[in-house]
Amino acid sequence: MQFAGPLALRSGASISDYTLAYETYGTLNADRSNAVLVCHALNASHHVAGVYQGQARSEGWWDNMVGPGKPVDTDRFFVIGVNNLGSCFGSTGPMHVNPATGRVYGADFPVVTVEDWVDAQAALLDALGIETLAAVMGGSLGGMQALSWTLQYPERVRHAVVVASAPNLTAENIAFNEVARRAIVTDPDFHGGHFYEHGVVPKRGLRIARMIGHITYLSDDVMNAKFGRILRSAVEGEAAGADYRYSTQDVEFQIESYLRYQGDKFSEYFDANTYLLITRALDYFDPARNHGGKLSAALAQARAKFLLVSFKTDWRFSPARSREIVKALLDNSRNVSYAEIDAPHGHDAFLLDDVRYMGVVRSYFERVAKEFQQ
Amino acid sequence: MQFAGPLALRSGASISDYTLAYETYGTLNADRSNAVLVCHALNASHHVAGVYQGQARSEGWWDNMVGPGKPVDTDRFFVIGVNNLGSCFGSTGPMHVNPATGRVYGADFPVVTVEDWVDAQAALLDALGIETLAAVMGGSLGGMQALSWTLQYPERVRHAVVVASAPNLTAENIAFNEVARRAIVTDPDFHGGHFYEHGVVPKRGLRIARMIGHITYLSDDVMNAKFGRILRSAVEGEAAGADYRYSTQDVEFQIESYLRYQGDKFSEYFDANTYLLITRALDYFDPARNHGGKLSAALAQARAKFLLVSFKTDWRFSPARSREIVKALLDNSRNVSYAEIDAPHGHDAFLLDDVRYMGVVRSYFERVAKEFQQ
Repeated sequence: MQFAGPLALRSGASISDYTLAYETYGTLNADRSNAVLVCHALNASHHVAGVYQGQARSEGWWDNMVGPGKPVDTDRFFVIGVNNLGSCFGSTGPMHVNPATGRVYGADFPVVTVEDWVDAQAALLDALGIETLAAVMGGSLGGMQALSWTLQYPERVRHAVVVASAPNLTAENIAFNEVARRAIVTDPDFHGGHFYEHGVVPKRGLRIARMIGHITYLSDDVMNAKFGRILRSAVEGEAAGADYRYSTQDVEFQIESYLRYQGDKFSEYFDANTYLLITRALDYFDPARNHGGKLSAALAQARAKFLLVSFKTDWRFSPARSREIVKALLDNSRNVSYAEIDAPHGHDAFLLDDVRYMGVVRSYFERVAKEFQQ
Repeated sequence: MQFAGPLALRSGASISDYTLAYETYGTLNADRSNAVLVCHALNASHHVAGVYQGQARSEGWWDNMVGPGKPVDTDRFFVIGVNNLGSCFGSTGPMHVNPATGRVYGADFPVVTVEDWVDAQAALLDALGIETLAAVMGGSLGGMQALSWTLQYPERVRHAVVVASAPNLTAENIAFNEVARRAIVTDPDFHGGHFYEHGVVPKRGLRIARMIGHITYLSDDVMNAKFGRILRSAVEGEAAGADYRYSTQDVEFQIESYLRYQGDKFSEYFDANTYLLITRALDYFDPARNHGGKLSAALAQARAKFLLVSFKTDWRFSPARSREIVKALLDNSRNVSYAEIDAPHGHDAFLLDDVRYMGVVRSYFERVAKEFQQ
């Protein structure tokens, strides 16, 4: 959908003539009370659920969560997925032409924040004629957007489902983002962010960024269970117990092969400037910042009811960070449900099937559904 | 010290005409029974203790641990520090000329393992006329060498002090090493490891490698305590609560500034091929490998008495990994002392002052000292 704007951004810049790519699933009911907005994390998009006809492996990124009869049941809810500004899957981003200059944005795309995304999403809801959301939900960075919705538009959100998220990034989180960004920015093919006009892509940097990301999405335990110290040669069917190859540059362990593959795949489709923008939005999110660092004071504005979910082995956004949000909401006598799932998969668990996790979300949305006319 | 060799390496290659740089502290006693070998980790050297005259900030890397009156008391012990083969601080490594070809080794330097280093260290002891070590000690990768000494030369080691170490790397450990290596190898200035003859250094890759390393050396807690979400602008004396700069490429948070500085500094002095070699030695170390994965079986060869020390917040080589070694030694009825120190600093704790840590090592070495004529 096309918007004339201008949309004022937190940086002081603004953006005009922008597009937001979105998808919807299910049917909006007569009194427009069954809408659920799903917010995406780093490398996902508006394609939340379902498949594209005739396109193999085109399942939406949360297809296990959203769909007919699924925990977020599209037979009852009208679900909206939207690609955020600055992303690279259809909404206006660094790969698009800046109408003000006629040149591709590249590194000149304005810095966007979680709050800016929420504002853009609100404009989309306005255009769709939806005043109030039955729920807003997201995992990780998507959870930050869901939380921010309850602060920026408290009267427009009845429920917020915040999964595997945090009230801000720790120094370690920022540090990992920064290493990934440095890998991209110092890739000679980055050209200060204007690589498009050079006909190249900073793939080396994107690969490194993705490899770092992948390590932090998984738990140590699941990595050991999945890869351990298994040699690539053993996987390739050589005699078990094959000797080391004794090489510093070739793949020796299966985990190396996996990471290189993930890095290569990512560098084929993801935009480098988008990677910088989205990790920066993560860094900047910090609702307590304008309240003297007091999260309880920041969350006093929220009116929604909340479900928070965290995963025990998630060391990127640990359960302790979700509990900070729970505590701050309880300080404000808000209605909060909280589930801490003992899943082994680390941060990635928020995208995976786990019967307890799916059960909690299903139950919660059954409660949400009871509140509106079906 | 110069060695004619050849030294047979685990890879099947061998190395001839090599140098081992070493330093000693204290005095070897008459019956040569008070020698302590200190093994270094990734980026340290033979310069374990003391300062170089007239050279500011030249303290050895374990100067708080080794010296007159210190936990490893050089008034009683004859301490030897040796730079490992393949390193870049004086012993033969990738920056040196391969006598067989007349060309700088570069990426052709043979892959070296912890076991190879121990063999080279044993050759040095032979040359120094030292048959038996009162103790061998090391932290992290240095601890792996200490452990390997007790398996390769069980009759030559009376005590082994293994600090913040592990019986092998986890998949996650290998993964971090691999990302660092890929950053170096894919730096266009790496030139397949023969960058010396191009007059360049793959500094971009080295910076990324060091930044990743630093994150894994520190605990999340100490990073939050030291840096948190403090902005660079606040540190530079701008008004507290200064607004974000809203930039994806400039330094915004103090942790970014710290990591960039560490990366820059490292890239000025560390050799890229050495980084590959040493991280690979870490990956390869796995004494249980030739014993069907059974660490207890592998450690059955040890005859030494052991002190193991781990640090609660060390997530790179967690206490659980040290406890695996303790368990395997106890399975063999070996004499083991174990201390788990509740220090906040993560893996780096093994290099830092902590009164409990230093106290444990001091007590242990007092016991070691009682066993020989002073």
